Amino acid sequence: MPQTARTIQLVHRPAGAPTPADFRIADVPLRDPGPGEVLLQMEWLSLDPYMRGRMSDARSYAAPTALGDPPPCEAVARVLQSNDPSLHPGDQVLVYDAWRDHTVVKAAACRKLDPAQAPVEAWLGILGMPGLTAWAGLAHIGKPKSGETLVVGAATGAVGSVVGQIARLRGLRVVGVAGGAEKCRYATETLGFDVCLDRHQPDLAGRMALACPNGVDIYFELTGGDVLAAVLPLLNPFARIPVCGTIATYNATTAPEGPDRLPQLMRLVLTRSLTVRGFIVSEFDADRSAFQTEMAAWLLSGEVVHRQDISDGLDSMVPAFIGMLEGRNFGKTLIRLGPRQA
Amino acid sequence: MPQTARTIQLVHRPAGAPTPADFRIADVPLRDPGPGEVLLQMEWLSLDPYMRGRMSDARSYAAPTALGDPPPCEAVARVLQSNDPSLHPGDQVLVYDAWRDHTVVKAAACRKLDPAQAPVEAWLGILGMPGLTAWAGLAHIGKPKSGETLVVGAATGAVGSVVGQIARLRGLRVVGVAGGAEKCRYATETLGFDVCLDRHQPDLAGRMALACPNGVDIYFELTGGDVLAAVLPLLNPFARIPVCGTIATYNATTAPEGPDRLPQLMRLVLTRSLTVRGFIVSEFDADRSAFQTEMAAWLLSGEVVHRQDISDGLDSMVPAFIGMLEGRNFGKTLIRLGPRQA
Repeated sequence: MPQTARTIQLVHRPAGAPTPADFRIADVPLRDPGPGEVLLQMEWLSLDPYMRGRMSDARSYAAPTALGDPPPCEAVARVLQSNDPSLHPGDQVLVYDAWRDHTVVKAAACRKLDPAQAPVEAWLGILGMPGLTAWAGLAHIGKPKSGETLVVGAATGAVGSVVGQIARLRGLRVVGVAGGAEKCRYATETLGFDVCLDRHQPDLAGRMALACPNGVDIYFELTGGDVLAAVLPLLNPFARIPVCGTIATYNATTAPEGPDRLPQLMRLVLTRSLTVRGFIVSEFDADRSAFQTEMAAWLLSGEVVHRQDISDGLDSMVPAFIGMLEGRNFGKTLIRLGPRQA
Repeated sequence: MPQTARTIQLVHRPAGAPTPADFRIADVPLRDPGPGEVLLQMEWLSLDPYMRGRMSDARSYAAPTALGDPPPCEAVARVLQSNDPSLHPGDQVLVYDAWRDHTVVKAAACRKLDPAQAPVEAWLGILGMPGLTAWAGLAHIGKPKSGETLVVGAATGAVGSVVGQIARLRGLRVVGVAGGAEKCRYATETLGFDVCLDRHQPDLAGRMALACPNGVDIYFELTGGDVLAAVLPLLNPFARIPVCGTIATYNATTAPEGPDRLPQLMRLVLTRSLTVRGFIVSEFDADRSAFQTEMAAWLLSGEVVHRQDISDGLDSMVPAFIGMLEGRNFGKTLIRLGPRQA
């Protein structure tokens, strides 16, 4: 059994965009599992934009990662050793842990996975937290109605791709924004979006207006920035804005220069009876089972597809994280770990 | 019967704060009432902040007042002549009309008032549109729970005073903001607010933090500006912001200087799971009867009180309107019109 875990530790709070120097790889002692505990070997680590928030010490919904600790992540892991009757060596589990290749946790914190039901890594994406985020945020806040228009940025990412596909299944016109022609083609040809706009091309606002001839009823906010600015003038009365992320601003160090658009937003909220509602997926934990049932059926029928952006090895994790914040991922960002090399 | 109506016409779209030169008093011919119509003599005209929006041609929920037309207003009027069996000379009615002393309208557009039930002008304030705005916005969007903290600006105005009193009756801690010591004293001593902060004194943000030791659960937005800025850092997770007005910004001609606080607001919405929801009172028309029943009982028992800021004569209307936008009114702003002088 391994005596150490290889971890990626946060050593500086990033000033703006994270850099490799903000992290350090270190081997740390791995204690033996106690009663009711298991030793896990991580097989898949999930990278998600919310982690950038945990690296900052600004007030948020969760405590920041302490300097010297590994940032948090969801993971799929294999049981190497178990001191609990519920799990056995070789079992695969879903666990909320951290950026490392081995860990010791309570068996009760693990959810055993059935590899025959779905590829295990799907529980980190389409069947897991990002999928539920899309499904529940759209249902409870977006309240989609057939014939309406929905806009979502990060259209090929873990959440945006699911938002758009569900909206399409619910009978909405779906307009996405993504970075580059290849992603846009994927969004329309494979995901079934009606339109996908390349955010690297000029005049996003003008192209957005053309893509939304009947205005916008739901703007699923993942990005902030230029996409938000392009959508604001197009919002219809009673439009809904589920606010799930603002990735374009996560690396900001200071408030951007003026003019100050806050009063203008409040006036728009007033005159168009808008609903702007932030949420964290944990609010909708009670929906997990209904979501998984519906999503599993969609995956089986092929009505919903998903795409993963996989990097191999713990050494790839920091570059993959930095790239994801810059929009360089194409699909759900995952780190795949093999067994430790001798 | 009068052959002319004295009207106040909008002649320029105000650039910033309205000035007397944006309006003109004119006598215009008054046609005879046709079948089903009535000739009305206005007795009370209501002034409300939303009218500033109608003077601008920016896109909004209602068409702007055309240049040369009188701005809209609710009014209490007396029937002088009726060509409809439902109304008789001497009846008092509630009507949505415009800034003028006489008008000819369809009888079907009038709601007959019973002067024994309440002073007729109360239907323009506490029992009317401003009262319903407060009651329904608080109930449907604010969703008050006993023990929570509510903040409202314009605390002694037609809407804010009702919001605060209802919240107090629902068991909330109520913190108001008003302009000047006299209004603040009225808010605490007469309206029963727990605290009222004078917006003319320095460090509103610091005083707001002291007044809200448990944070803010409902911010009823009437003002924007400094009150909004003071409340934002104090908002609790799942706080609700019914957006009913942003009077501090109505006279703005350009977006204010930076920094741009829009990204910061969206991040706050996200990290605290906030609900920001604009509304226009017409959305809650179906509540009118439930509201009137509850409010009439509160008025009768003295649990809710109201205050009116009355100016006499059509000539006082423009100065009263300009003053209201500057916060110089103290209570619901009304114009009282006597019979035309010979």
